Amino acid sequence: MEINKTRLQQHFEAMSLIGKIGETGTNRPAHSADEKKAFELTAQWMQDAGMKTHIDNFGNLIGRLEGKNNALPVLMMGSHLDSQPYGGRFDGVAGVLCAVEVVKTLHDNNITPERSIEVISFADEEGWRFNKGLFGSRGILGKLEEGELQRKDKDGITREQALKSFGCDITKFKQDEYQPNSIYCFLELHIEQGPVLDIANKPIGIVSGISGPLWATLKLKGMAGHAGSVPMALRKDALVGAAEIIIALNEIATQIPGAPTVGTVGTLNVFPASRNIIPEEVTLTIDLRDIDLERRHQYEKQLKEKIELITKKHGLTYSLTEDTNSEPRYCADWIKQIIHAQCKQLNVHAPELMSGPFHDSLPLSYATDYGMIFIRSKDGISHNPLEYSSYEDLALGTNVLLGTVTEILKQ
Amino acid sequence: MEINKTRLQQHFEAMSLIGKIGETGTNRPAHSADEKKAFELTAQWMQDAGMKTHIDNFGNLIGRLEGKNNALPVLMMGSHLDSQPYGGRFDGVAGVLCAVEVVKTLHDNNITPERSIEVISFADEEGWRFNKGLFGSRGILGKLEEGELQRKDKDGITREQALKSFGCDITKFKQDEYQPNSIYCFLELHIEQGPVLDIANKPIGIVSGISGPLWATLKLKGMAGHAGSVPMALRKDALVGAAEIIIALNEIATQIPGAPTVGTVGTLNVFPASRNIIPEEVTLTIDLRDIDLERRHQYEKQLKEKIELITKKHGLTYSLTEDTNSEPRYCADWIKQIIHAQCKQLNVHAPELMSGPFHDSLPLSYATDYGMIFIRSKDGISHNPLEYSSYEDLALGTNVLLGTVTEILKQ
Repeated sequence: MEINKTRLQQHFEAMSLIGKIGETGTNRPAHSADEKKAFELTAQWMQDAGMKTHIDNFGNLIGRLEGKNNALPVLMMGSHLDSQPYGGRFDGVAGVLCAVEVVKTLHDNNITPERSIEVISFADEEGWRFNKGLFGSRGILGKLEEGELQRKDKDGITREQALKSFGCDITKFKQDEYQPNSIYCFLELHIEQGPVLDIANKPIGIVSGISGPLWATLKLKGMAGHAGSVPMALRKDALVGAAEIIIALNEIATQIPGAPTVGTVGTLNVFPASRNIIPEEVTLTIDLRDIDLERRHQYEKQLKEKIELITKKHGLTYSLTEDTNSEPRYCADWIKQIIHAQCKQLNVHAPELMSGPFHDSLPLSYATDYGMIFIRSKDGISHNPLEYSSYEDLALGTNVLLGTVTEILKQ
Repeated sequence: MEINKTRLQQHFEAMSLIGKIGETGTNRPAHSADEKKAFELTAQWMQDAGMKTHIDNFGNLIGRLEGKNNALPVLMMGSHLDSQPYGGRFDGVAGVLCAVEVVKTLHDNNITPERSIEVISFADEEGWRFNKGLFGSRGILGKLEEGELQRKDKDGITREQALKSFGCDITKFKQDEYQPNSIYCFLELHIEQGPVLDIANKPIGIVSGISGPLWATLKLKGMAGHAGSVPMALRKDALVGAAEIIIALNEIATQIPGAPTVGTVGTLNVFPASRNIIPEEVTLTIDLRDIDLERRHQYEKQLKEKIELITKKHGLTYSLTEDTNSEPRYCADWIKQIIHAQCKQLNVHAPELMSGPFHDSLPLSYATDYGMIFIRSKDGISHNPLEYSSYEDLALGTNVLLGTVTEILKQ
């Protein structure tokens, strides 16, 4: 049994026209008219694959292939069809369209499984619109936080208003939540969004786990002064302190060559930001990840010691706020073994690698066993119109997913 | 002969009400209604001191005490009455009001000098409104640059429109320029805007020169990528490179302890500025100053070598643009000697110090000999409502200026 590569490619190409920007880009915000169009198109393909479809009150598109015994926990697959504002054609899309293709292949082969299969396009995985993501996948598990429906997008529209416009009824969240043990396992195929597979020249990777990030915000305060008149020895330059902290984080994250630890300062703001005024305040964000939580804790401690030393040296005060502190979530061994076996059968050597980015799998990992298949990303580029995974690799990954599903359905 | 300290203080207090913000702040933009009010008030004081006043077509307020021989080059004094948007009560104001007080004292003592004296409040010294300063002092010397009348402020108003609203006729610039050798010398009293005098516990300083800044903009380009998925060894993180360059500049500027060299990165922007994306581009400004031009050139060379090494190490490309490259401009020895002698007579020990900031003296230095008197700034704070110089120090400085003027008038 094999998936239909031509059909799969056509689906990607049709999807890429919705919210298209430039030649190869996509802008398909969560709960938007373009996402609705993407849902309508995908629902059609789901129905062609024998699934019943509906949009739940969290704004998730759900397709369900009814099994013979609908009392059994469902085999769930999925990802998301919303994109970054300046995003590509594959992030999220792959996990939905490849899963639909798997079900379509089963359907075309007249297979009706014992347990039901669901394919979900989760609402607002990306999170940029309301500065909080994984909305739909947290929603079905009852993991929304207080006040998050009142978060506003840049036009002042709240999540609540956006959901209403999308046709959702927020008073009916409860009935759309999944009961404990109602999900047998969750499978997500996703592009890697990093360069590891591309550099190793491997089309497919098997995810070992999602490394939880520590996200923190550091605010340094020194003393402004005229850049021409305050002698160096008297300065309290917040940016010089920030520079030393950036380098310290880089050194901490690279102390074991080849380890999967990553440390990043992605944003930095200077106040008052005048070329001839010594920086008084610097605010920067810290992102530290490691699949080894103990090591991450140890590195966090090292970084805090460095911040203490560096700020003292430069006469700065500081505040360090923790924004997110997630633990790593490991994929289920039994699912990884099945994926490995499928790859072997297809003569593919698929290395294991960790996922730095979040995925909808992360909230699902608290409710069920999960597994993830990564597809090679050209040059590791993602969240960008240049994002590219070949249809050969995607088809290969979909065949691995098909084999994995078939194997799991035997259980 | 002594100045009138009470009157001087009253003038500062009256001036502080025009464009007042908060308790002690000032917002008096160039070519604005508030600057016009400040000119009208000052013109009144100038007239009380025996001067004729007019506003020229560059927007400068000029007061002239006619000498017995108006063929002689004028003794010119001045500074500016425009302020920073969130500025204080002394920057610029001191150089105008103290000069008016000197002329008033001469006038009250029935002194009519041989050569004429002019006191000028120069238009737009600060430069923030159109991002280009020293407008009036460059204007009278024929040093305006092409296109600068078309520069716009944040509301889209051009310099040309602002000058017209102020009552200036830009077709008559030529007639308001000063002829070569028409200025005998230029004297400017100014607050220090730095902490050197305050720390040394000295009310007055004698400026040795204005150290010319090198202003440059550095743009670093690396490679964006997901902060969670790109291994450290494969990164081209523009912000890590920028951090090393900031530290390199700091080390270069401090290699000779106690030297007056200063090096500052005052602004830094990151693109795309997302907490989970590796910085692809960083743009930062470099400000390097030294009264010793040769040393500054040598340090510039060291910095360029460092930029080359650091960018290579991190796989970055870069462009380095020179925005301003001013040479240091030294005060005239003969004027410094006169100021020293006046200080000695008043039992004041006044150290010499360089000026990091620009002043209207900078363009004047190309047309005539100049001298500057600095007044202590509390905690070195300037360009801020907290800017403070005591009326005692200001009165003392004005007496030094009076003595200096009296001495020069004997020549």
